[in-house]
Amino acid sequence: MEISGYRIDIERAADIIEKQKYRIVALQVPEGLKSNIFPLVEFLENKTGATILVSADPCFGACDVVNYELRNMDVECVIHLGHTEIPSVENFWIPTIFVNAVSTLDVLKVVEKAIPSLVGKKIGIVTTAQHLPTLETVDNLLRKYGLEPFISEGDERISSKGQILGCNFSVGTKSVDQVDSFLFIGSGTFHPVGLSMSTRKPVIAADPYTNTVRKQEIDDMKNNMLRQRYGAIIACRSARRFGILIGVKRGQQRIKLAHELRQMLQSTGRKSLFITMDEFSPVSLQGFSDIDCYVSTACPRIAIDDYLQYKKPIITPVELEIVLGRREWETYVFDEILV
Amino acid sequence: MEISGYRIDIERAADIIEKQKYRIVALQVPEGLKSNIFPLVEFLENKTGATILVSADPCFGACDVVNYELRNMDVECVIHLGHTEIPSVENFWIPTIFVNAVSTLDVLKVVEKAIPSLVGKKIGIVTTAQHLPTLETVDNLLRKYGLEPFISEGDERISSKGQILGCNFSVGTKSVDQVDSFLFIGSGTFHPVGLSMSTRKPVIAADPYTNTVRKQEIDDMKNNMLRQRYGAIIACRSARRFGILIGVKRGQQRIKLAHELRQMLQSTGRKSLFITMDEFSPVSLQGFSDIDCYVSTACPRIAIDDYLQYKKPIITPVELEIVLGRREWETYVFDEILV
Repeated sequence: MEISGYRIDIERAADIIEKQKYRIVALQVPEGLKSNIFPLVEFLENKTGATILVSADPCFGACDVVNYELRNMDVECVIHLGHTEIPSVENFWIPTIFVNAVSTLDVLKVVEKAIPSLVGKKIGIVTTAQHLPTLETVDNLLRKYGLEPFISEGDERISSKGQILGCNFSVGTKSVDQVDSFLFIGSGTFHPVGLSMSTRKPVIAADPYTNTVRKQEIDDMKNNMLRQRYGAIIACRSARRFGILIGVKRGQQRIKLAHELRQMLQSTGRKSLFITMDEFSPVSLQGFSDIDCYVSTACPRIAIDDYLQYKKPIITPVELEIVLGRREWETYVFDEILV
Repeated sequence: MEISGYRIDIERAADIIEKQKYRIVALQVPEGLKSNIFPLVEFLENKTGATILVSADPCFGACDVVNYELRNMDVECVIHLGHTEIPSVENFWIPTIFVNAVSTLDVLKVVEKAIPSLVGKKIGIVTTAQHLPTLETVDNLLRKYGLEPFISEGDERISSKGQILGCNFSVGTKSVDQVDSFLFIGSGTFHPVGLSMSTRKPVIAADPYTNTVRKQEIDDMKNNMLRQRYGAIIACRSARRFGILIGVKRGQQRIKLAHELRQMLQSTGRKSLFITMDEFSPVSLQGFSDIDCYVSTACPRIAIDDYLQYKKPIITPVELEIVLGRREWETYVFDEILV
């Protein structure tokens, strides 16, 4: 089915529901697909006869699988739209069908526009889930221009070659020695900035939605972000009471790391406690007036992307190491959830 | 332990943890107790040696039990602070200890101030969880003034005599024939307004936090609310596509009712779909641009108290009946979750 500029293989999900005779099915939709929810639900209901429960809770990635909560509503299967599976995140309780939403935009035009900006001949191509099927044609195009494109595998958190997540740039770091620069296809700045910070290679971003190519802007954003992170680290130096944030979402849980951080804090005489959160929000934390600052083990974007929304500093585990003098600022790396 | 103006029997929870040898314990705290979280956690950790995970997610009532989500973090027990158990909400998965937070405020002063405003001799006394232990002394005081106080039992959703919840005024409706007016002890307007709408008896509110007595204000609020609800009903008359909201929180699930509403809508040629939500927020619904309005089967306060925050009308199940011509406006009743 084609909807809101995306091709969604909802037919495959319907086939599975029919075959497995699921009667109650939950449908997780990312924000961009909520605007056309009736055609999706009606298709599934008419095709399968199952009751469809649309989950309205925010769903920013495949780390966020509704599962446990819906179990007591007799939900037999979850269709998770718009993200590709994170192979290392086991979905027990309720079987989950991941259905990617593939952008129908032509990316070749903006890629061609980006070619003069690429650095060197060996180009690592990376993208997000919605443009994955275009990677092969991009590869062909770059070859025509005499370049040597390379699409790397990621770690076990990555389901497809060339794919990066906001919390995982392993496709980049694994291929860093084989490439001169990276071509990122997609929108937004978080992914290309994160890639640049993780690989320390030039990153050229080609955005098919706006038909713009950005290179200097990525560097500028990176420098801005680094300044902000430096400020956050300084702000935490005098903190005595830390909240260690643990994400409840299945794919964002780093409990072992949380315990390690607590030991680090204890060994330097600092107090800390564990705070779990499902939906992260500044409102949920603002009541904790006797906590000085937070270290987040959940989605890296909370500390970095949402930093200004929170009233107290939030730092990443790597940044805590710098606060405690266990790591030099010069060896700063981006927080990633790796496998 | 006394904290933030509340007496909390956290010692009892610690005893249970010790006795049961729980090693990982989640602590659910309402907003008002977040400001003094360190003393609570340190007491529990020192007394029991268990790892304490503080849940920061909003927790407005005992209907909201973190359970399923924390199961995979090996949490063996949940301490739920600040609300009394809802007997009919079964907490499977993880054993949950409810620890009420009892206000240390003296209520007798404001109750004495309220006495001249009471209507009739037979007075139904009602309150919320934090003032429950004062009911007996209030009863004695009223008797001294020659009144005939009455503290009624509620339905199975109510754990103590005289207690009302934002979603359950059964203590009031069960005693409506035995009383001339109600004395509500507590803060806020939602509870006394709801009680007034459910019982159609005069309600006098005595607020020990502000030492104020309100009677006319409760009536005014009720009339305002009724006007707003009438407007919401009118706004839904022309709607063709309805979202039926289902709360994921264990104590807010009314799935059978949701199915009944869908059938009602179907039989009048209106389209509808089921939407589940855990944390209700206007942001989570704003993406659904092809839905005209919502009927909420979750916490009644969402449709009524938070009405103005949402961009599209949200009505209660009772109000849908009026929209569809199955009930007269004159028989309007407040939405309650009853057992």
